Order: sequence, then C-alpha cells, then structure tokens
Amino acid sequence: MNTEIKHIAVLGAGLVGTLLSIYLKKRGYNVDLFEKRDDMRLSSSDSGRSINLALSRRGIKALKDIDVLDEVEEIMLPMKGRMMHSLDGNLTFQPYGKEGQYINSVSRANLNKILLNRAEKSGVEIHFGHSCKTVDIEETKVTFESPNGKEKTLEFDLVLGADGAFSKLRQAMMKSDRFNYNQYYIPHGYKELTIPPTEDGEFAIEPNALHIWPRGQYMLIALPNLDKSFTCTLFFPFEGQPSFESLQTPQQVLHFFKNTFPDSLPHLKNIQQEYFENPTSSLVTIKCEPWVKNNCVLIGDAAHAIVPFYGQGMNAGFEDCFELNVLLDKYEDDWEKVLEDYQNLRKSDGDAIADLALHNFVEMRDLVADDKFLIQKKIEAKLHDLYPEKWMPLYSMVTFSDLRYSEACEIGMKQQRIMDEVMQQPDVLENWENLNLEQIVNKLDQ
Amino acid sequence: MNTEIKHIAVLGAGLVGTLLSIYLKKRGYNVDLFEKRDDMRLSSSDSGRSINLALSRRGIKALKDIDVLDEVEEIMLPMKGRMMHSLDGNLTFQPYGKEGQYINSVSRANLNKILLNRAEKSGVEIHFGHSCKTVDIEETKVTFESPNGKEKTLEFDLVLGADGAFSKLRQAMMKSDRFNYNQYYIPHGYKELTIPPTEDGEFAIEPNALHIWPRGQYMLIALPNLDKSFTCTLFFPFEGQPSFESLQTPQQVLHFFKNTFPDSLPHLKNIQQEYFENPTSSLVTIKCEPWVKNNCVLIGDAAHAIVPFYGQGMNAGFEDCFELNVLLDKYEDDWEKVLEDYQNLRKSDGDAIADLALHNFVEMRDLVADDKFLIQKKIEAKLHDLYPEKWMPLYSMVTFSDLRYSEACEIGMKQQRIMDEVMQQPDVLENWENLNLEQIVNKLDQ
Repeated sequence: MNTEIKHIAVLGAGLVGTLLSIYLKKRGYNVDLFEKRDDMRLSSSDSGRSINLALSRRGIKALKDIDVLDEVEEIMLPMKGRMMHSLDGNLTFQPYGKEGQYINSVSRANLNKILLNRAEKSGVEIHFGHSCKTVDIEETKVTFESPNGKEKTLEFDLVLGADGAFSKLRQAMMKSDRFNYNQYYIPHGYKELTIPPTEDGEFAIEPNALHIWPRGQYMLIALPNLDKSFTCTLFFPFEGQPSFESLQTPQQVLHFFKNTFPDSLPHLKNIQQEYFENPTSSLVTIKCEPWVKNNCVLIGDAAHAIVPFYGQGMNAGFEDCFELNVLLDKYEDDWEKVLEDYQNLRKSDGDAIADLALHNFVEMRDLVADDKFLIQKKIEAKLHDLYPEKWMPLYSMVTFSDLRYSEACEIGMKQQRIMDEVMQQPDVLENWENLNLEQIVNKLDQ
Repeated sequence: MNTEIKHIAVLGAGLVGTLLSIYLKKRGYNVDLFEKRDDMRLSSSDSGRSINLALSRRGIKALKDIDVLDEVEEIMLPMKGRMMHSLDGNLTFQPYGKEGQYINSVSRANLNKILLNRAEKSGVEIHFGHSCKTVDIEETKVTFESPNGKEKTLEFDLVLGADGAFSKLRQAMMKSDRFNYNQYYIPHGYKELTIPPTEDGEFAIEPNALHIWPRGQYMLIALPNLDKSFTCTLFFPFEGQPSFESLQTPQQVLHFFKNTFPDSLPHLKNIQQEYFENPTSSLVTIKCEPWVKNNCVLIGDAAHAIVPFYGQGMNAGFEDCFELNVLLDKYEDDWEKVLEDYQNLRKSDGDAIADLALHNFVEMRDLVADDKFLIQKKIEAKLHDLYPEKWMPLYSMVTFSDLRYSEACEIGMKQQRIMDEVMQQPDVLENWENLNLEQIVNKLDQ
C-alpha cells in the first residue's frame, strides 16, 4: 500500500463517518467528508433511518475522546432499565446494571448535527449532495455525482467507507476477487410510531426506562425523546399470522393493539394514521471480509451492519474509530501496520456483536417475560454484586465494559452453560436465594 | 405472478441453461436463450472455466430425459474409483461404489456443444454475444447489450437465470429488499495443468480412475480426456507456505513438484510453461434466498454455486431442471404452484450439496491418505453389501442414488456418528473384519 497518507476521503457523513473525520483531522490529516444527502442541519427531511438510538459506554468513550461529550450530554436521556409491560398491563422493572449504570436515548439527528458542527469547526471539508457512484480500489479513486449532476473522479491517499449498510465502497470491493460476504434479513420488519407528550406536556409513561411489550414472536418498544414524546418501534413479522401483511385496515390495527398491547393504545394518539403512513423497514445483518483492500477501508455499518436489539450499532461503529485512533497512536501513523491490526482486531468483534444482537432479539421479545429467565438474571446480578471481578453478566460486559465484544461473547457463553446447569436444579425457582454462589462462580475457572 | 406463461427467456447458454431450454421447448414454450459469449462451436477460445467435469447419475438422468444421452455417452470416460498416489509413488485404488457404479469424465466444451446443437434443432432461439446488463424483476424485462454494442430491453413472461456463479439476474435480485445472500471463498485456488498422451499415443496413467495426490492441506488431481491426455488440477492455498504466492520461479515449481508429487512430474511435460501461463482461479460457494422473485427464477450455479470437490456442480444444476420438469408435469404447467415447490424443494438440497462439497475437500486432500479413514470406508462398503437397503455410504447416496441431497446429508451425518463410535473401539484397525455388522446397522433405527 501507499503508506504516505496525507489526504483522506471519508464516505458518509452519518454518525460514524463524521466522528471518524474529527479524529483524523485532530491527527493532522487533510480530510474530505462526502455525503450523498443534503446538509441535515438545513432541512427537516426524514433520513429514513431510526429516530433514536441507545448510547452507552463504548460510544461515550469515543465522544469524550474527541471532546464533544459535554455537548452530547445535553441531549442524553438516561434509561436505567427495561420496563416490561405484560398483557394485563402489569409493569416490571429490570435494571440494566448496577446503581449508576444506564444507557441513554439520543436523537440520531441531534447527535449527527453536533458532530457535523464540530467537524466543520475543526476544519474537515464536508461535501453534501455528493453521491458516490463507484470506487477504484486499485487507484484509490472515487467517482461522485455532485449536486449539479456532473460526475467527477477524485484521487486520495486513503478512502474510508463509513457509508453504512449499503456501502458503495463495499459494493466496489465485492466486485474484486475473493471477497467474502454475507447479508441476512430476519423475517421481521419494523415500523415507528409515536407516543406524544400528555396534554400537560409531560412524558406519558416512565421516562427513565426502555419500555418493552414482549409478546413471544414480536414486540413493541419505546424510547424517550427530549420533547417528552416516545418513539415506539413495532418489531413484527413481515408475513404470517399476525404480521404486517395480515393487518390491512385501521380496524384490524386497532383491534390488534387493543388485544396485544392494551396499555399502549391510549398513548398512541395517531396510531391509525402513523401505522399506514410510516414505512415498514427491513432488518439486515451484514458480515464481510476483508475490510481492507489496498488503501480502502470499511468501518462501522459498512463493515458490520447489525440488527438493533443490543443497542450497539452506533456504539460498535464509534468503538471502531476509537480503536483505530489507538492503533494510530501505537504505530505512530504507520497505516500499513495500523490497518492490519485494525482488521484483525475489529473483524472478530464485529462478528461477535452481530451474533449477540441477533440473539438478543429472542431475549427481548420472549425471554424477558419468562419467570425462569428473570430469576436467572437475578442470580447473575447477585453473582456480580458478590464477585464483581469474576462474574459480570453478558449484558453488562457488552454495555458497561471495555472488554472486546468477542471476549464478552466467549465469556458469556461459558456463563450461560453454567447457568443452564444451575437452572436445571428442580427447586431453583423457589430456592434460588439459597444457592451456593461461590460454587457457581468457581465453575468459571474449571 | 403472471401465470400465463408463453414466452420464456433463459439467461446463460452454459450446460444448465441449454439443457433447461431444451426441456422447456419440449413442453411447447417459446424459448429464447441468451449468452454473453460468442458461439463456442465456432471458436476454440478458452471459456476460463474448468475443462472437464464428473458426470454421474443425477446429470445422466436429465440427459436421458431429453433424449440426448446416446450422443453424450460417446464422450464419457468412466472413472471407477479414486487412484491415490502416495508420496513414495505407491498407488491405492478405492472404488467409488459397487461393481458397475462409476462416474464419468466429460469435456465441458464437448457436452455444451452437443446440448447447443440439440437446443437449436429443437427450435430454441439462441442469441450469442448478448450480454445481460440488468433485469427489471417487477416487469420481467431484460436489458442486453447486443453484438453491435447497442442496448435493447426485451419483455418476457418468465426469466430463468442459468447465468452462473456471477449471475446478473441474481445481482438484480440482490438490489431488491430482503434478499439473503452469502458468498464464501475458500483460501485455496486452482490451476489446471496437462498430462499429454505418451509418445505412443496412449494414456500416461490409468485412464479409468480419478487420480488424487492427497497432501493434507492441498492436492493434485487428474481426470482423463478423450484425446488420451489428462487434465490435472492443483488445489493449493493462495497464500502461506507452500502456496501459489510462495512458488515464484520455474525452479521453485519444479523443486516443489519433485518433492511433493514425484510420480506426476515425468508426465507433466509442459509444467514450467503451464504453471506460469495458466490462470490461478478462486473457488466460491454461493447461497441465496429466495430463488424466485415475481416471474424471475434462479437455477444451477446462479442459485447455488458450489466448490467442485463432490463432482456435483453440473449434476445438481441438471437435477434442478429435471425436478422443475417433474413439477411442471405434476401441476400441469401452473407456474405459481411449480415455482413455490421448486424453491422449497431445491433450496434445501442446494444448501446440502454446497456443505457436502466443502466437506469433501478435506476428505479428498487429507483423509483419503489416512489408514483409519480407509478402513472406515471398507466397513461401510461391507455394510452396504450386506444391507443394501439399509446402509448406503454417503458418497453413494450423493453420486449413485436419487435421494434428495438434503436427505443424503442427514442420513450421512447419522451414519458418521455411528461410525465415529465404531472407529473408537481400541482394536478396530486390526479386527475390523470381525465387527458385528448387524449391530452397527441396527443403530440407524435407534
């Protein structure tokens, strides 16, 4: 590769691309950031992507690193646990971690605007309305269609594709030989709905939680917004009974919500309109390899698109940037060494969080309403309290620690095998508070 | 879907596309067959694909069905088993099946020519030099670049993509939502080399066998040709030690072959030239779903590209056509029902043979040189002799039976679990001839 890197193109001014540009500009590179959309700060048009996101430790770490956390904190809404809504309207609260550990609801648009302002201020050249048509991976050249409709081809020392799940850079890599690629759509889609603030201008339901209506094969969730509304997301099969396909009329939709999510219905003020006007979107997992070809590099969703059920999509992308910056420090900007390590380290972590996210859908929509599962969570919380260094629940390792995703996944599987045994004891549901916890924790060393 | 199907486009005049066109023409459809290459019957240009193929029962069944087997038999060279070449030049012959069961080496080009002639004779309109640029899946329209360089868009009632591993129809499907896709390149590539006839014009090595030089991580194989030459294929890692990358000079190549495949070297008359002039090609497995979108259908390698190690690529594609024809009979050309069943049946079979083919690489390059493995094969052959209805070795189920690949795969896994137990008996290598075979075979029912 050309190791004399001065001029870098970043594709995609979404969250990851913009954060990455700030990192690189800070290191003294000449950074051009290209975005096919218009400047979101000037328009209120819908980006077609999810409205709010869960920001947690890995993402926060990177935001702090580029000194933008103070500003972001003003738009963060803490969610301290899951609030489960049962069919008969009972609420059960399950904390995400220990006292003081929480995840944060943030608006994608607001966070992106903060990052764009910071990037611009720090000297990143941002080019909106530049649609990447193709990338010449051999020559590190990118062809854009610019706002005037003309095509232009620009050459860089390095191209970083942060252009999301449908990355043009990845499409170009796919045309080269020996590129491994997997895209998998789950049978469920999602649709966003709104719980507006009450007439008094207050949150209609508990604001400091992520609300879940788990219903086995599908679920509704709700995350709070700064304006005291909630964005609800229905994760629901595309086909079958019931499904997006099977709910065709406003009457069917109302009937279904009344029977399935009864306590949500009084709050979903515009459901009949929103259900039919808002899009139904699909959910894809993408894995590929290699992430680096010549002087072209994939990062964030472009390298590892994941389903949203662990709330780690943005956090994983931000951590890619954080770790890339750590490697640039370590190797004093010797990109050949940096990129070799970057791919080796982050590929296995990307695969791990992709699998964890798929698995967590089952947990969220089904297991969180299961007594046995909830008791297992309580036992694990107790183990973590008593042996904080030895036993950390998988959710905490992923969400509240800096452990590599791949390590968290491996330890989590070992813990699950141990807990499977524990939960098979005949009287565990009644006597779980009397378990010999030291014996359980010691199994980790066996 | 539009169920009034009269005018069908078949993309790709390779083996599967041409065979499929003959089937459809026989049923009375108006069939146009499009091929991006020029007419192979008029030129001797290399297609860039493998030179010879293993034709076995599933492929033969389809050729017989369209009354072309007589002609094909004239170009078939029976291979009755594997001839293993050890490092010190010892030969071991392992029959593929029972007496009278064999696979056949056929030249891809010769077989394709026979099929093209028959297609033309039966009234299929063949359009060479027509490169498919894109397919409109909603409207069943295909845009071609024709030999004069002009683009034209044609509309059909049905489009069948038999256009191979890099199918344009599949690429169009991939741009639609919710298309699952996986492409996986193994770390090995392949290079073809030639053993010409002897000076007396005879085969240089045993003609009625598939020759293997198994060497653990890689292997050389040889298949006989009608002109009494052999086409050898070196399956070898792209990188590492040794690999295509590590053999850079004619001296290194000679030295490597001398040490690794010593008894092949005297026969490989042009190795120094061929090794550097012939291309190194990659090996991909492709799985996707759905195979049917609106009135567009994938078939053969376009739907399920597999590695060549089970000799089933062409046979699986021909069986797709055979089974499609069976369904057209069953449902009296009601394509909606036909395509639903086609996808449900053949998708699981395509997945199964893809996995079996990957697994068989390990068997061919490594296990066939393993004593324990060879004794396992002998025990299984004996089981098959004594209990032909109950125990058929996996290779036989795949190669010499009409069992669905998915069933063969499932039964094969069960048999493997039983044989794993048998082979763990401490004295099995010495006493295998005294095993209680009835006890073994009865485990299948447990």
